[in-house]
Amino acid sequence: MMESRIKKLEQILKNDRFANYNEIRLVSIGKGEASAEMTVTENHLNGVDIIQGGALFTLADFAFAAASNSHGRIAVASHASISFFKGVSSGVLTAVAREINSGKTLGTYAVDILDETGSKIAYFTGTAFLKGEY
Amino acid sequence: MMESRIKKLEQILKNDRFANYNEIRLVSIGKGEASAEMTVTENHLNGVDIIQGGALFTLADFAFAAASNSHGRIAVASHASISFFKGVSSGVLTAVAREINSGKTLGTYAVDILDETGSKIAYFTGTAFLKGEY
Amino acid sequence: MMESRIKKLEQILKNDRFANYNEIRLVSIGKGEASAEMTVTENHLNGVDIIQGGALFTLADFAFAAASNSHGRIAVASHASISFFKGVSSGVLTAVAREINSGKTLGTYAVDILDETGSKIAYFTGTAFLKGEY
Amino acid sequence: MMESRIKKLEQILKNDRFANYNEIRLVSIGKGEASAEMTVTENHLNGVDIIQGGALFTLADFAFAAASNSHGRIAVASHASISFFKGVSSGVLTAVAREINSGKTLGTYAVDILDETGSKIAYFTGTAFLKGEY
Repeated sequence: MMESRIKKLEQILKNDRFANYNEIRLVSIGKGEASAEMTVTENHLNGVDIIQGGALFTLADFAFAAASNSHGRIAVASHASISFFKGVSSGVLTAVAREINSGKTLGTYAVDILDETGSKIAYFTGTAFLKGEY
Repeated sequence: MMESRIKKLEQILKNDRFANYNEIRLVSIGKGEASAEMTVTENHLNGVDIIQGGALFTLADFAFAAASNSHGRIAVASHASISFFKGVSSGVLTAVAREINSGKTLGTYAVDILDETGSKIAYFTGTAFLKGEY
Repeated sequence: MMESRIKKLEQILKNDRFANYNEIRLVSIGKGEASAEMTVTENHLNGVDIIQGGALFTLADFAFAAASNSHGRIAVASHASISFFKGVSSGVLTAVAREINSGKTLGTYAVDILDETGSKIAYFTGTAFLKGEY
Repeated sequence: MMESRIKKLEQILKNDRFANYNEIRLVSIGKGEASAEMTVTENHLNGVDIIQGGALFTLADFAFAAASNSHGRIAVASHASISFFKGVSSGVLTAVAREINSGKTLGTYAVDILDETGSKIAYFTGTAFLKGEY
């Protein structure tokens, strides 16, 4: 049953048009965890040729959405924070989300964004409000 | 002189390819303030047909970038937070950024994201590290 | 009826022993807003003779608690952020809380911490989960 | 030399009067990490007999201060966030701080607050601005 839920969640995530349009791909989902990646292209750059903060946020937020929805209940983001460490302009970035806490109505997750060498590019935390089953 | 700086900043912002690609437009910039807008299209939606958190963040972040860079010094985002209030699927959203504090090395800004009726969709705060003149 | 609720809330806030012990006083409460103050003493200082971040947070959090509970429902803080602008060592600090958004289950508030000249010392935002009536 | 710096830092932390007054104790410091503890007493409670958010914040902030100052440079908090998971009224709470990122001018830390059973009570993240050596 858990497996069929993860399949349903994967369908929902595949239908994320903002993630698709910005070339963000789901890599894996497990219970309370997920990862996603993005190959940086010119479309992700800001006016000074560095990846735009919104592109990094979206990558992390997508991994957070996958992880926070992984328990079979619809999780709606209520709050998120991001700290930016390093400006990058190319390469593959990976967002790795893990659960910090899962309560009755709120779940909190942390996401590391790493470059290909494993160096930290940004750190994201998000809190989601848990609704009924999907 | 201030005017020529704002012109230079407008050029930098026009070169923000992530904002352009996601159809975010600068509306205005002043000293310590700016606004931007986005017409929600299918490309901005998530897997459950609501605007993706990353699209809202990017809109707010772009207004924050404009406002935080408006003093003639390069401002690099170091931290940002966003609270989501309401899911929307269409319409024009406006992000209005204003200065909370401008220090020697850090500046803090708040951004309201509003729908066409002026209802609050999300609230963003960002802190930028101030570098040399651009 | 509203008035009797505010009275009940004032009783709850008077019973806040951590605020009392650290000499934080409620100044005013209205619907969705409140203010509190603290006279900085040696007990509020950190190891380098500046007000400790926790003392500033507690002052803001107390004003946030008053404002977020002002609608007659118990509001439990789920998340809070604070940005620090200026180190102070003495004087009266005032925290002024106002409502950013009030939803069905979550309310979001912003709090300015000001010194006696009205200069911003810190900026706080908090989100509270709304429970039943008190 | 590192050892003498940690000694100097321990002296600074021992002089934190707000932490002392609220009975917060340093447990350990290492490079980029630290832990602190607090035995919950009536002085830490809010108006509904649960630990006040400011008391939890102060405990986490003290561990963050210890960890962020552990590299021999003065670290001044510029921003902090806290998510609250569980209300407690008694027992010993421990804050464990670890480094997320250490840059040239900013360092970012995460702090778990745990009860005696190791259950998570709150999660804190903080960013400090790095100044000269102490």
